Amino acid sequence: MKFGGTSVGDVARIKAVSGTIRSALRPNRKIIVVVSAMSDQTNKLIELTKDLGVEGTIDPEYDALVSTGEDVSASLLALALKKLGIHARSWRGWQLPINTDSFFSNAKIKSVNTKKLIQSFKDGLEVAVISGFQGVEANSRITTLGRGGSDTSAVAIAASIGSERCDIYTDVSGIYTTDPRIKRKAAKIKKISFEEMLEMASLGANVLQTRAVELAMRSKTPIQVLNSFSNEEGTLVCDEEEIMEKNIISGIAFQRNEARITLSNIEDKPGVAAKIFGPLAEAGINVDMIVQSSSETGNTDLTFSCSAEEVEHAKEAIAKSKDLTYKNIIVNSEVAKVSIIGIGMKTHAGVAQKMFETLSEENINIHVISTSEIKVSVLIERKYLELAVRSLHDSFELEKI
Amino acid sequence: MKFGGTSVGDVARIKAVSGTIRSALRPNRKIIVVVSAMSDQTNKLIELTKDLGVEGTIDPEYDALVSTGEDVSASLLALALKKLGIHARSWRGWQLPINTDSFFSNAKIKSVNTKKLIQSFKDGLEVAVISGFQGVEANSRITTLGRGGSDTSAVAIAASIGSERCDIYTDVSGIYTTDPRIKRKAAKIKKISFEEMLEMASLGANVLQTRAVELAMRSKTPIQVLNSFSNEEGTLVCDEEEIMEKNIISGIAFQRNEARITLSNIEDKPGVAAKIFGPLAEAGINVDMIVQSSSETGNTDLTFSCSAEEVEHAKEAIAKSKDLTYKNIIVNSEVAKVSIIGIGMKTHAGVAQKMFETLSEENINIHVISTSEIKVSVLIERKYLELAVRSLHDSFELEKI
Repeated sequence: MKFGGTSVGDVARIKAVSGTIRSALRPNRKIIVVVSAMSDQTNKLIELTKDLGVEGTIDPEYDALVSTGEDVSASLLALALKKLGIHARSWRGWQLPINTDSFFSNAKIKSVNTKKLIQSFKDGLEVAVISGFQGVEANSRITTLGRGGSDTSAVAIAASIGSERCDIYTDVSGIYTTDPRIKRKAAKIKKISFEEMLEMASLGANVLQTRAVELAMRSKTPIQVLNSFSNEEGTLVCDEEEIMEKNIISGIAFQRNEARITLSNIEDKPGVAAKIFGPLAEAGINVDMIVQSSSETGNTDLTFSCSAEEVEHAKEAIAKSKDLTYKNIIVNSEVAKVSIIGIGMKTHAGVAQKMFETLSEENINIHVISTSEIKVSVLIERKYLELAVRSLHDSFELEKI
Repeated sequence: MKFGGTSVGDVARIKAVSGTIRSALRPNRKIIVVVSAMSDQTNKLIELTKDLGVEGTIDPEYDALVSTGEDVSASLLALALKKLGIHARSWRGWQLPINTDSFFSNAKIKSVNTKKLIQSFKDGLEVAVISGFQGVEANSRITTLGRGGSDTSAVAIAASIGSERCDIYTDVSGIYTTDPRIKRKAAKIKKISFEEMLEMASLGANVLQTRAVELAMRSKTPIQVLNSFSNEEGTLVCDEEEIMEKNIISGIAFQRNEARITLSNIEDKPGVAAKIFGPLAEAGINVDMIVQSSSETGNTDLTFSCSAEEVEHAKEAIAKSKDLTYKNIIVNSEVAKVSIIGIGMKTHAGVAQKMFETLSEENINIHVISTSEIKVSVLIERKYLELAVRSLHDSFELEKI
């Protein structure tokens, strides 16, 4: 069971969470809990680094400092559980240990040592509360896992110890067919495959972190997304084979602030793509869709998309690229990406066509198309984003999912 | 260098402390810094346990929780030092490790492993910042050292690594001949022996913790008490042999809220003291002075003192003691203890006599007297405490120290 920052936001919430855990206990069931920092606590720590003028520094001290937030909530939750008569204790990353590489502020988990954990369960422990978001590197320094790291901690521990499931408690009730703020009739998905969830996560449905879903997929650890503020049924993210009735389309994801960059009249010969995307990668720019139209004249246009925030940065990187000749660079920072996602696409033809027709009926022009086995993404004018999401939701009848 | 809670009370103070450390750096000098939690930080953590209803619990989780306060200030100070271009890093108790026993909330340091510390200095580290007040026990759980634990951490580390000195920065400028709030002309002592300091510390001069002084004495580690808010010269606490001109009297200590308990007509035979002080020790009562007057009738009176707060508790413990016969129990909760302390007493006669005369001249009646090689303590009516301290300070000419 993993509880995020708002779920353990204050002492009253920590007490509530201890009740939720107690309800989940059964004879012969052991529970591992992974906690984030109390939402307020992390802000206070970051505030201190701001005052010191070292905010966001990549430095082992920063990891050591920020990781104390999770330690505080882990110990408080263990105390709350013990107050309920439950045999509980807290574990920090280094105490297991959770071994990571040495990329401070963005470390990757290399292994979770579950030996002590298993022994303590044998010795009668009922609930182990583990600080999320942290680990320890080879020189015994504390590392943090980067954004959404506690989800990754939870899945990594669940996978390492062979948990039956990893329940992730958040402030939403599950994964929806699309953002309910845009389409009020968005439906909660009961079961979704890892592959679909991965597309949903990376395409802007911010409930689960991509790294956590990837890890769950590799280890085949089912994730259940639940609301810590209610008892509603959540969403199970699991292996495709465990989903009997596969939806053709499971959901519609989107990214609002995208930009399209077109280089016109570039040479159509081997190596030219490397001249463009090499410098962009070096500059740390996340290039998303790439479309190149071939021609017979030996010259062609190349279009790619990236986050609107990164446009200026991307233009600079291209300007620096040597030996790259092009006629014009055309930028449109007013586009958005909409994607339909579903494992059913693998076996159903005509899904992309239905998407294009739906958008066409609304007079929405498509700038760029890109597809994978289980998704179709299009770049459209940003002002049509809501209209596109709603009409696609209707035409694929997602409210009935 | 050890900095207490007020010395690192906020980010501005942490910056100031980083400047103090920089000024102390010299070529070929390495500095170990021990920090307490930012004063506010500890209060906030304790507030959380209050809200949870587990305040003051003896529980490993409580140690784990509270110890995060020191971790926060250690990392912040390391970041501040690095910002000044100083090669610094933080260490937590478990990272060295600082090994303790398993008495949570009041653990004792068993050993400080300085191997990693020495290696890191060899590798170019200039300043090591270590979380005070904490250690780790045999099962890798975090322990805290109890009240004033950071002083003990500092002295233990200094002793283990063979530091030339342990500088303790506080919010006062050193050790004074007596409390300046009572005697305005109290003088700062330049040098004081460990033995004297131990008497001063345990008798109510709350600048240094007794445990820390004991440890310094055993390891012959000089302690310098300094003010982190000013550049004044402080007080050096050192071996008696390093003090050339020994004062007959170094200071006057006192404890305001004492109680005197007299059991009249107890049997004057072996084992009776055990019947009284056994139960008191079991009840956790700190008995201070004990006076027994012998008699020829086979019956005698026994008087002892303890903190006024503990009187009721002490009476209960005595009432429970089996086979103890006495006529009356007479309690006076309105007494105070005044002590004169000085290593010069060892070689100078008449010091006690001069104390008694001084008090007699002020018409202050003495209830109980107890002496050691380097101190004389008396119990007097509490209302005369200030008068006694002032007149003793004058008659021993301590303002000229």
